[in-house]
Order: sequence, then structure tokens, then C-alpha cells
Amino acid sequence: MVQATALPRNEVGIDSALGILKQRFADRFQTGASIREQHGHTTTWIANQAPDAVVFPHSTEEVAEIVRICAEHKVPVIAFGTGTSLEGHVNAPAGGISVDLSQMNRILAVHSDDLDCVVQPGVTREQLNTHLRDQGLFFPIDPGANASLGGMAATRASGTNAVRYGTMKDNVLALEAVMPDGQIIRTAQRAKKSSAGYDLTRLLIGAEGTLGIITEITLRLQGIPEAISSARCSFPSVDAACRAVMMTIQYGIPVARIELLDAQSVGAANAYSKLDLPEVPLLLLEFHGSEAGVVEQAETFGSIAEEFGGQDFAMTTSTEERTALWQARHDMYWASLGLRPGARGISTDVCVPISRLAECVTSAQEKADEMGLLAPTVGHVGDGNFHTLLLIDMDNPDEVAKADEFVGWLNDLAISMDGTCTGEHGIGQGKKPYLAKELGPATAYMAAIKRALDPDDIMNPGKII
Amino acid sequence: MVQATALPRNEVGIDSALGILKQRFADRFQTGASIREQHGHTTTWIANQAPDAVVFPHSTEEVAEIVRICAEHKVPVIAFGTGTSLEGHVNAPAGGISVDLSQMNRILAVHSDDLDCVVQPGVTREQLNTHLRDQGLFFPIDPGANASLGGMAATRASGTNAVRYGTMKDNVLALEAVMPDGQIIRTAQRAKKSSAGYDLTRLLIGAEGTLGIITEITLRLQGIPEAISSARCSFPSVDAACRAVMMTIQYGIPVARIELLDAQSVGAANAYSKLDLPEVPLLLLEFHGSEAGVVEQAETFGSIAEEFGGQDFAMTTSTEERTALWQARHDMYWASLGLRPGARGISTDVCVPISRLAECVTSAQEKADEMGLLAPTVGHVGDGNFHTLLLIDMDNPDEVAKADEFVGWLNDLAISMDGTCTGEHGIGQGKKPYLAKELGPATAYMAAIKRALDPDDIMNPGKII
Repeated sequence: MVQATALPRNEVGIDSALGILKQRFADRFQTGASIREQHGHTTTWIANQAPDAVVFPHSTEEVAEIVRICAEHKVPVIAFGTGTSLEGHVNAPAGGISVDLSQMNRILAVHSDDLDCVVQPGVTREQLNTHLRDQGLFFPIDPGANASLGGMAATRASGTNAVRYGTMKDNVLALEAVMPDGQIIRTAQRAKKSSAGYDLTRLLIGAEGTLGIITEITLRLQGIPEAISSARCSFPSVDAACRAVMMTIQYGIPVARIELLDAQSVGAANAYSKLDLPEVPLLLLEFHGSEAGVVEQAETFGSIAEEFGGQDFAMTTSTEERTALWQARHDMYWASLGLRPGARGISTDVCVPISRLAECVTSAQEKADEMGLLAPTVGHVGDGNFHTLLLIDMDNPDEVAKADEFVGWLNDLAISMDGTCTGEHGIGQGKKPYLAKELGPATAYMAAIKRALDPDDIMNPGKII
Repeated sequence: MVQATALPRNEVGIDSALGILKQRFADRFQTGASIREQHGHTTTWIANQAPDAVVFPHSTEEVAEIVRICAEHKVPVIAFGTGTSLEGHVNAPAGGISVDLSQMNRILAVHSDDLDCVVQPGVTREQLNTHLRDQGLFFPIDPGANASLGGMAATRASGTNAVRYGTMKDNVLALEAVMPDGQIIRTAQRAKKSSAGYDLTRLLIGAEGTLGIITEITLRLQGIPEAISSARCSFPSVDAACRAVMMTIQYGIPVARIELLDAQSVGAANAYSKLDLPEVPLLLLEFHGSEAGVVEQAETFGSIAEEFGGQDFAMTTSTEERTALWQARHDMYWASLGLRPGARGISTDVCVPISRLAECVTSAQEKADEMGLLAPTVGHVGDGNFHTLLLIDMDNPDEVAKADEFVGWLNDLAISMDGTCTGEHGIGQGKKPYLAKELGPATAYMAAIKRALDPDDIMNPGKII
């Protein structure tokens, strides 16, 4: 494990807040060691920093009550969704209260005429899509995990559909939030666009719970397309695949998904998902549109792929085949771990302008080889975002040090290419040094906003800033 | 004219700053009465509040220098693009310095591989599109005026293409800005998405120059579609037209534009643009896609229109006919003024969930009739946004009072429908009371952010907050 910095604890305040919250929330207030540990960071290599207690509110008013108690006693409050974040977002470096929003999981309204819905933060993306299916609607954002929508908003999540539908910042119309002083606000109305004042919606999206706790989310929805087709195509090299992606985007084909798996990842998928794909770099695509439209899109992509040496191009409109292919893509994390049983997976998350993508991915692979690291790569390549997953023996300090060096090297490379150290995972604890490298003087204004809204630093302290 | 509130002036500071700026900028520093008046508000009914001087910087460093001088002497700094805003955004209620960015009008880079470009804030949207055309690219956001891209970012502008391509918030990748203390920051890298810290890009977009001056903008671009077709269709009522729009959006037809003109507006367009359209409510549409795709979209829309009593459906792929139709749409402001020569046009800008659009537009028309106001209406109806243009004799105080009442009534109605008082024009001075009605407690946090970043309130004081 990599130690996360501990922050000074306000023992007196924490004791007082614990007492009040225990009385107020009875069995919805928990302090057992195992539940506390589950509410600290449990993924990746950042060490767990458990909160002092976990509270399970049922309403916005209860969240506000918890925050007011914590504000009065200057005690940290950490919003918790499903705990699937990757950069230590839910750790409690100064102790405090984890506010577990999983029981605030009601879908409050679906406005099918307006293509939007209102949900509580504990609703997961799969829960929402199951609920919507009968109405011919879906919500497109799909990070790997079945994350909560509150958590996805807080980390500005995206996933495989972002190339067509954007990220959480593009798909949230309005938020309700409890601010650090316990006040409840709404950031916007339900209109599809607005120029009314500062964009507090977008300020809270990606703030990782450091400026307020999201208690209600108004989401844009999409109609399920008339037709969906998927395609796959193998390429002689990662470089060739990336160039085909670049051309596809420039050509304006409205791909719904365009995902890269490198040769190692394809091998892992073959083994894990019982597939029989050629073990060379692969692009997986999905097209949304009319019956004629998706065929046209796939054919146009097919011609582009050919130019770049694409082979074994296969298109399907069969729901079964499509689901199997995308299930394999979604299982890539587990499939990759299968390449080295017992290893831990450390995911990088750089995103670069697409013109630099081929160079960036190829350099990352060469560097990993050079350092003797096993590092299968998958990517949301239509956005220039890819994940090199380092498979590390955490008991080998030399390997851990190498992984740390690789992560830093790759983040620096992406930043030097006018890219970012994080396309979708967020800053949390793990990427704080890189945020400063990436945005320099701008971070001082982020800190000023944080101080203005949360002067006692009770909202998820030790993250981002 | 409607008087805008004056704010206390810092005479000593202004005198000092004027002296320093005059020496530094020589003939790029101007204090003539007429140029000062041109740099205050000159559109709509809000009275002009001229700045004390106008400076024309040529670089980000010069903007930073101006801001540092003004910060030191606590003098207001008001960024100025083309002066086409409608809510008093560029007025100087406490005096101060207008920073005219029109000479910072260079297109710094076009990255055609990445579908983005970097421009200075004084570049206008038409200038950019003229520059891009040869490369097969375009920038879709088109407010009525040939506004500057800095101004468009500052007011979160949109226009007729927003239904397909989004607003400025969706089409800016990164900003460079001079902050209230004179520091230069970059808000993001050029990657297509990022989860790196607070979204300062979106915070500055729509902040109307109250948090910083935008000095460079990285914009997303679009490839010019393979095919573009346009269509028009007449409807028996505004209600029927709005219902056809709602169905079109729900059906998922990716319309690039879908604009409503009410019967009065069609009459005005006929007279002004020498057209011969039936004088009943009209929808104008544009479709972008492949050759087959645009035909398919138009045909699907045609069937929907028929269900709602649409008549005289006409589709064209002729560039000439299409340009003539959209030119008429873009000239609607002037055409409407022709309905009552000598009158001033006061534009409303509400935006509501699309399920409430028909009711909102119809209520607005009934109310205007009831009050005896001439009020042609056009709208970006795919987004639920419409402009009722009040044609007012400004020398008749009774009429001005009625217009004021109407504007307040309509804003209240939109807010009661979960909509906004401003879809795209912004708050400025004119809509401040409605912002508080619309977002209530949230405005306190906007004010806190403003105080944190601009403690001396030098950046465009008296706007938004």
C-alpha cells in the first residue's frame, strides 16, 4: 500500500459530533471497525483511512442535519456512494463522518416528455437504466463500476459512451446540494439551457464532495435508438488503430462507442470471456441511429479501417453478440487481473488531444516494457483517454516504486502533450501533485473557492486541493 | 430608458488609474465622450452608463497590466467585446475602465486533427467561420449578432444550433484568463475531457466578466457535414407547432436547428425579406448528416408534422434557398422592428422544459394581446427557449411600464414552470431581481465566490450578484 498523508484530527469535535449523531440516528449510525474500513478507500494501492463513524441518511433534510452538526463541531464530512473511486476519494485522513447515501436511492421523477429525470444520489446507473428501459429511455454515462449517480457527478465520471454523449458535466441539468454550512441549495432549474448566474452545477460536478454533498440530481436522458449495431476490427499495431480512430472522429461519424484493447488485453479477454479474437490490437465500436444510419456508419468506418490495415472487420446487429462483446469490454479489469493472479491493478487515466493519442499510447507501452512492467491497455480512444493497467505485486517494494515512477512519467508525458493526468477518475488524494503540475496558478483560485465556501475545511478534507 | 442603479465611485482611484493608463497606452487609451458612450450599454432599454476611459490592449500581458493597475487603485474593469449584449452587461455603474478586446482578434491555432482551435477573445464568430471554411470545419454557436467569442463565452451564449451542438459551455475546452489580482491562469489543457479539479472553465463561462477577463479560448470545432438540408412547415397554431417540436426531440431526430416563428413574425419576415410564406406559425429546420441521413431526417420530421396539422412542408438541399431562409431568420430582429417603425425592441429570453413550451408561448401571446402589446415571437424551440420581442414606444411611460410588467410576469411564469428567466442572454443588470427569484439560496454562494476571487469588486461591478 502507498501511505496517504494523515491530517490533524479534531478529537474533541469528533467526540461531540459522534455523541450527537449516535443519539439522533440510532442504528443508522455505525462505528464497527469493519464497516468503517469499508467506507475508507478499498480499491487500488492507496492505504485505507477509515472514518470514525458511518451515518445512513434517508433524506436531504437528514444530510443537512448531519452537516450542520459536523459544521458546528468542525468535523470532516465525507460523502460516500458505492466506494468504487480509484484515487482515495472516500478516505478520511482527518477522521470524521462518512455519509453513506446508498439508502437515498429513489428515482423521484421521470419526465419522459422532457427527456430528463430526478434521482437521489444513491441510485446506481444500472438501477436507473433498468427503471428506464420500459419507457424507451436510457442514461448513457457508464464508468466501469455500477457506481452511484451522486458519486459519478461528484467525480465528473464518463465511460465508453462519452465520445457521443459527453461526460457527467454534459448530462446533469441541475443539482440539489447541502453546502458546508448545512444550507440546502438548488443550482439550476430543469430548463435544457440557462445563462442564469455562475454555473454552480458544473462547479459541484467534479468537486469530489469538497464543496458540498449532492442530494438530488436532474439528469438528461436519451431515447433508446431505433437501431444499434456494433462492430470490431483488428489492427496490425496500436498506432494503426489510433490513426483509424482519429480519422473516424474527424470524418464526423457519430460513433456511440469506440474502444481500444491492446494485444495483451485481447489475450486477457479471450481467456476470461471465452472469446477467440486475434491477439492483436482491437477496436470495438457501437453505432446508434436509424436502421439505415447504423449500417451506413459501420460501412464508412469499415472503409476507414481498411486504409489503416484493419482486418477481420465484423459488424453485427444481433443484441446477443453485441451484449457479449461489451460484457467482455466491461469485464476487462477482472480479465486483466487474470494475466497475473495475485497482483493488484493500478489504473492510469491520462487523456490527450487525439492527434497525440497514438504517440502517447505507444510510448506508454514501450516505457512499461522497458521497465519490465506488465501493463495491458484499454481506452476510450475517441476522446483520447486510455487506461494502462499496471499489474503489481504489492509485496515487492521495487515493483511498487517502479509503478509509482511509471505513473508519474505517464502523467508528465500527457501534460506535456497538452493533455490531462485524469480524463475521468478525478484527483482525490492520488493525483494531487499532478493537478498542480497540470494547472499551476489556477489551483490557487480553486483553493480560494474552497476556503470561501468551506472555511473550516470540513467537506472531504485532503482531496483535490 | 430604464435607469440602471449607479454605484459609488472611487474618484481618487479612478483619477490615479487614468493617469497611469494614459501614459502607458498613449493613443490606445481614449476618453472621448462618444467612444465612452459606445462602450456603455447601447442596446435595449437600459440606460447607458459610460466608463471613464477605454483601453485597447494587444496581448494577455497588457490585459494583466491593466488589471493590476486597476486592482492597485480599486478601479472597476469592464471587459468589452462587440457591445451586443442585451442586459446592460457592459455598463459602468461605478465608472472605471472599459477593456476593449477587439484588437485581440487573432486566430492563434487551428488543430484540424483534434477538431479544436485557439483564439483571442476579440475574434468574432463570423471571422472564425470564414477562416475555417477552407479546412472543412465550422464553429456552431450563433447568437443573433456577430458577437466576439470572448463575449459569447462570458455570457454562456447559444443560438439556433444549440439544440444539436450545445451552448458555449459545451464548446469551450479551456480558457486563459486574467484574474482580479492580475494573475494569468489557464483553466484546463486541450484534452477533450478531464476530471482535474474544479471546473474553472465552466465557472468563467457565464460569469459575465465578474470573475476575470477571458484572454484566450480553446474551442471545439465540428466538421462541415457531408450534407445539409433545410425544411419549413406551417402549422395551424403555435401550440401545434410546439407539440411537433416536442415529438421531434423525443423521437431523437438529431435536428441541427428547429426554430419557431409565430404568425406576426412570419408577416414581418415576408415584408422585410421579400418572402411569400403563409402567415401562420412556422417551423424552420436544418438537418446535418450524410446524403441519405438528411433525407431520412427530413422525411421523419415530415410525418410528425403531418400528425400535428403541418402544411406546406418544403424541404431543400439547395444552398441558395437554405441561405435565404436562414438569412431571413437571422434578420428577424430588424424585420420585427419593421412592424412598428420607431419602436424599440425589448427581448425576453425565457427557457422552459419542452413539455411546458406550448403552454408558455401561448400564455405569453395571450398576455401580450390582453395588455395591448405588439409582441412577435421567435424561438429556439428545440431547447424550450423563445424570445417574445416587445415593440415599445419609449416615449410613452405607460407602455414602458406595461412592458416592464410583462417581462416580470413572463419571467415569473417561466420560473414557476421549472424554467429560467434567461436561456442565453444572461443576467447583467436587467435580470438581477429574477436571478434571486429563480435560484434563491444558491445566489449567496455565487456572492461568496465573487467575494473570494474579487474582494474589492473591481471586475464588472453591479452585474449578476
